[in-house]
Amino acid sequence: MSDDEDAGAACPLPISDYPEILLAHGSGGTLTHRLIESLFIAAFANPALEARHDGAVFEIGGTRLAFTTDSYVVDPPFFPGGDIGSLAIYGTVNDLAMCGARPLYVSAGLILEEGFAMAALQRVVASMKAAAARAGVELVTGDTKVVGKGCGDGIFINTSGIGQIEEGEGISPKGVRPGDIVILSGDIGRHGMAVMAAREGLEFEPPIQSDSAPISGPVLALAAAGIELHCLRDPTRGGLATTLVEIAETSGTGIGIDESAVPVSDPVRGACEILGLDPFYVANEGRFVAFVPAGEGERASRILAGDPLCRDARIIGEVTDAPAGTVTLRTLIGGSRVLDMLSGEQLPRIC
Amino acid sequence: MSDDEDAGAACPLPISDYPEILLAHGSGGTLTHRLIESLFIAAFANPALEARHDGAVFEIGGTRLAFTTDSYVVDPPFFPGGDIGSLAIYGTVNDLAMCGARPLYVSAGLILEEGFAMAALQRVVASMKAAAARAGVELVTGDTKVVGKGCGDGIFINTSGIGQIEEGEGISPKGVRPGDIVILSGDIGRHGMAVMAAREGLEFEPPIQSDSAPISGPVLALAAAGIELHCLRDPTRGGLATTLVEIAETSGTGIGIDESAVPVSDPVRGACEILGLDPFYVANEGRFVAFVPAGEGERASRILAGDPLCRDARIIGEVTDAPAGTVTLRTLIGGSRVLDMLSGEQLPRIC
Repeated sequence: MSDDEDAGAACPLPISDYPEILLAHGSGGTLTHRLIESLFIAAFANPALEARHDGAVFEIGGTRLAFTTDSYVVDPPFFPGGDIGSLAIYGTVNDLAMCGARPLYVSAGLILEEGFAMAALQRVVASMKAAAARAGVELVTGDTKVVGKGCGDGIFINTSGIGQIEEGEGISPKGVRPGDIVILSGDIGRHGMAVMAAREGLEFEPPIQSDSAPISGPVLALAAAGIELHCLRDPTRGGLATTLVEIAETSGTGIGIDESAVPVSDPVRGACEILGLDPFYVANEGRFVAFVPAGEGERASRILAGDPLCRDARIIGEVTDAPAGTVTLRTLIGGSRVLDMLSGEQLPRIC
Repeated sequence: MSDDEDAGAACPLPISDYPEILLAHGSGGTLTHRLIESLFIAAFANPALEARHDGAVFEIGGTRLAFTTDSYVVDPPFFPGGDIGSLAIYGTVNDLAMCGARPLYVSAGLILEEGFAMAALQRVVASMKAAAARAGVELVTGDTKVVGKGCGDGIFINTSGIGQIEEGEGISPKGVRPGDIVILSGDIGRHGMAVMAAREGLEFEPPIQSDSAPISGPVLALAAAGIELHCLRDPTRGGLATTLVEIAETSGTGIGIDESAVPVSDPVRGACEILGLDPFYVANEGRFVAFVPAGEGERASRILAGDPLCRDARIIGEVTDAPAGTVTLRTLIGGSRVLDMLSGEQLPRIC
């Protein structure tokens, strides 16, 4: 295992400085990245992992496939706008879509805690069924384990998925290049705040609904229109800021973002202010950013805005060649600041 | 959701009679089957799930694939002969092999409990790396979640896998037919007893080592030799007896087994006697049963016995047309008894 020094200033400490796993190792921010780089990518060196994308892309028998996995530990399992069942289906569907793949087949691995209510399990399975039908995927294989009381927390779900890449070379952060336009598919921060409100018993008026939804449809619409997709990514754990920093670091480009162009709903903005959170770091589960060639930005955002899931889609910035690995936010008051990855753990267990 | 009445006398109660999840719902025995039949197969009706096999088989772009998932919650995570890391790799590799597929790509989804020792995580990852190399698969995508102290139990790992089916139609319990010969690849009961001994601090002399190992090599050797494989299955949770009952019920055949032909090592037999367990119901993680045509039994068992992982391979019985759905054990003392699936929970969290 190497503690490679080029992992960036955002990850100053080697993992061996942490004798134990912290909540922040699962935040999606700097500690998660350090763990992945120095433990997993170092151990399992291969091109698919080294692409540092939402899924692996490879070819079997001449067929180009994408393959992805995620475990869902969201607390609470039911929240406004969704639940752990639909989230687990959409999350994996979306990771496949971010690889430019058409999602086809999904697996489900459940870890249940002894004493979990059968009615709740039935509700989760019904939600998974509806979500799979909506997303156009089939759940074809599964596994159920049960752990004793106090050794789990109700229900955890892993979903893995397989999709087919019909056109193009597969999409990854390394495809981003200077001049690209950055498009965001809708307003940010809703999923994280919906879960947080449900967990803490906070009531906002109107209630904040998660944006959890399958985004393969709009992505495939872009591809079908012949838009050259350089990179796609859904800003889940760590939020939009962390996602953009990851892409800038992996592609070695600079990304400039106009804060005023990034939609944040009034309820999310209000809730973030009350809780002292920055919506740029709050998780989304039905949004994505697309990097497209300069001349395609307007057309791509118009195509997206025609889909009900993306009606607030818009251009939020552009890619430059410098400063490499850096995301610069042009703020509402006319200044600019460099965005970092999420550090520490802002909102545990939001997915 | 239907509580279909044809699910068999082995599952007498509908799941709605259980207001809460019990440990036995994860045993691999009757309650697990009832849960899978009345909740998952009812909800996600599709041919892949209805095959009731270790993995799904389907075709994408003309390429025939197998896809499988399992979560590992073994307690303790380190045991004689293996650990949760190698077990998670081999378990998924073996499920692909049981579909007649060559295992190719594996995903890993880790759920870590806050406070889990970094050194233990490093040891698990190193074990996964060595296991993937031994089994000839690449770990290409992953995910790490962290839950708070008391909401997990150290480490849970989900692995999913993709393999290619190069020849034949894919293998499933429905391929079993009267006249088939049943071959067992080695002695039974080692994995379950090794984990149980480690968990309870029991010392046997000599210590019982888990049989955890990748069995794709011997399976592919059978296929390469032109042996017609009607069904393959690894007897994990629920042990050899539950596996055979599942196959008899799914295929609608009778299976006759000679107790004297089933190898059980002296340490496993002794440990089972002390603990009041039946080795036929104890989990294995490096064994499989193969159903082959009558004329192929001797040749198939000789081919297997040439592989160090299967040197105790032998014919243990045969398939008949009646009584349908029943496994009959011809006992050491010359009698016979009908084997049931595991009922209740004999050994929780052995995988």
